[in-house]
Amino acid sequence: MNKLNVAILGLGVVGGGTYDILQTNRDLITERTGCEIEVKRIFGRRHREDVPEELFTLNYDDILNDPEIDVVCETLGGIEPSRSFMLEAMKRGKHVVTANKAAVAAGWDELNDQAKANGVRFLYEASVCGGMPVLSAIRGNLSASRFLEVRGIINSTTNYILSKMAREGKSYEEALKDAQAMGTVERDPSSDVSGMDSANKLCILMSLLFGTHIPPEDIPRTGITELTKEDMAEAERNQQVIKLVAHGWLEDGELKCYVRPERIGRDDPLAMANDEKNALIVTSDMSGINMFYGNGAGPLVTGSAVAGDILSIALMGGK
Amino acid sequence: MNKLNVAILGLGVVGGGTYDILQTNRDLITERTGCEIEVKRIFGRRHREDVPEELFTLNYDDILNDPEIDVVCETLGGIEPSRSFMLEAMKRGKHVVTANKAAVAAGWDELNDQAKANGVRFLYEASVCGGMPVLSAIRGNLSASRFLEVRGIINSTTNYILSKMAREGKSYEEALKDAQAMGTVERDPSSDVSGMDSANKLCILMSLLFGTHIPPEDIPRTGITELTKEDMAEAERNQQVIKLVAHGWLEDGELKCYVRPERIGRDDPLAMANDEKNALIVTSDMSGINMFYGNGAGPLVTGSAVAGDILSIALMGGK
Repeated sequence: MNKLNVAILGLGVVGGGTYDILQTNRDLITERTGCEIEVKRIFGRRHREDVPEELFTLNYDDILNDPEIDVVCETLGGIEPSRSFMLEAMKRGKHVVTANKAAVAAGWDELNDQAKANGVRFLYEASVCGGMPVLSAIRGNLSASRFLEVRGIINSTTNYILSKMAREGKSYEEALKDAQAMGTVERDPSSDVSGMDSANKLCILMSLLFGTHIPPEDIPRTGITELTKEDMAEAERNQQVIKLVAHGWLEDGELKCYVRPERIGRDDPLAMANDEKNALIVTSDMSGINMFYGNGAGPLVTGSAVAGDILSIALMGGK
Repeated sequence: MNKLNVAILGLGVVGGGTYDILQTNRDLITERTGCEIEVKRIFGRRHREDVPEELFTLNYDDILNDPEIDVVCETLGGIEPSRSFMLEAMKRGKHVVTANKAAVAAGWDELNDQAKANGVRFLYEASVCGGMPVLSAIRGNLSASRFLEVRGIINSTTNYILSKMAREGKSYEEALKDAQAMGTVERDPSSDVSGMDSANKLCILMSLLFGTHIPPEDIPRTGITELTKEDMAEAERNQQVIKLVAHGWLEDGELKCYVRPERIGRDDPLAMANDEKNALIVTSDMSGINMFYGNGAGPLVTGSAVAGDILSIALMGGK
């Protein structure tokens, strides 16, 4: 029986979900991969009584210096120290899995270069569209095609707010407040509502699809904070809905892109994505259009993508 | 530079599409995989002037006995001799890629066992839902989850006929004749319209999702041949559409399944799949629902899935 030892950095929403999946589905995962996946260390302060105390450490060197740890799973969020932690892990020959779109988008070149230089895998499926297997499809079975366009609704928080505004006739401020009261939206939603979170994800998508890394801050971007009840009502009168759309495409060989609220027709496939759902359409020369639709957020949902990346390392025998 | 030599069995619709993709996107594929993929032999009679004559052979031993051929790509269709050809190739240590749902469904156990025994890869993404990366998602990033249900429209021919009946008010016979005249439907559509093609695909999906192989002939199945104009009109009056639905799910630990025409509401996500489009919803304990929507048929579309499987072997260094 092979064994794969994992360290999780940050046992928050996504890290905690990942931990829970690896415990709950332990037998299933062992059966599918032929490999026992063990969480050996957790970077962070202990705040869950169901997780053994000896797993926790506040000293990252305990993880870096442990030769038995094969995979570092980064779910801290934010650019630093996440990026440095990932680079350090790679230098020690450890595979890296992350859910952190901001760090992946900001550190794209150095993270990929470092992984290549050290012969380790760098996987980040959970950084885009939660539990939807979008990036592994692009890197995997779709990769015989030349990609032409990507267009989607890739931020759950704003989609939840916009769905509430459309359905209940609320103002942006009211819908935001309701969503925060329900815990669906973070207390500081600025990265979501400004479109920055979508820009980070679009940056990652375009880097993979078109081989061009456009820093997220250079992607033309409009958030949803200026949308009014009247905007929503006007869209409704025209049989349309307003969605925060991320869009990247090749036009005469040039890569164009934006993140902005758009009125889309009810017959647009993206229009089916309401509340916390995401939808993404990838267009290529050979496979034509492929749409992915599913859950874009949540501890188990996003954790399932992190765990999926860990499994794919296990399936390659930890190599 | 690594090199991967491929033999294509049958240069028909799918085999021809695969060949074209490997030629057209040759540079892109080499860049993405770090590997040159070469079609070295083709099993069949030459019927395309743009394909070099020396590639063709009618003697399968020429392929089996060629130690330079790494991958056998089976696109002949039909259960035999395809199944035997694939088993023979595996015994010689060659990876096998196929688009052949009938042969995969019928030979599930022996094909997988033989691949395992010989340490070769057996990939069949193109056998289900054409260019949509459904199987590799199930085998890949979704695999940390326990699967609960699969439901979809997975046959393009019947979906085209039903869409035409619904849109143009035609009878089944009229819609079928029109589709055949346009070349969209094969001259002998019996496997499609009887639901057998969907049953083959559902068999493969359930084998992967639930680890249980139900032979396609044991899947309860109703085709579309008895549907009338009146059935379609009644569905329309109820804001519904009739689709040929393939469905497999766990109920109290027991696996249930069927293929049959169903009336589904216009707000059912599957209802968006019209004409040759396919849609498939996979539900699991952790990632929740994931829907895939795209092109279910066509030479380049299905060829892109075959080529995608070949690329994934190249990405693993041909190992």
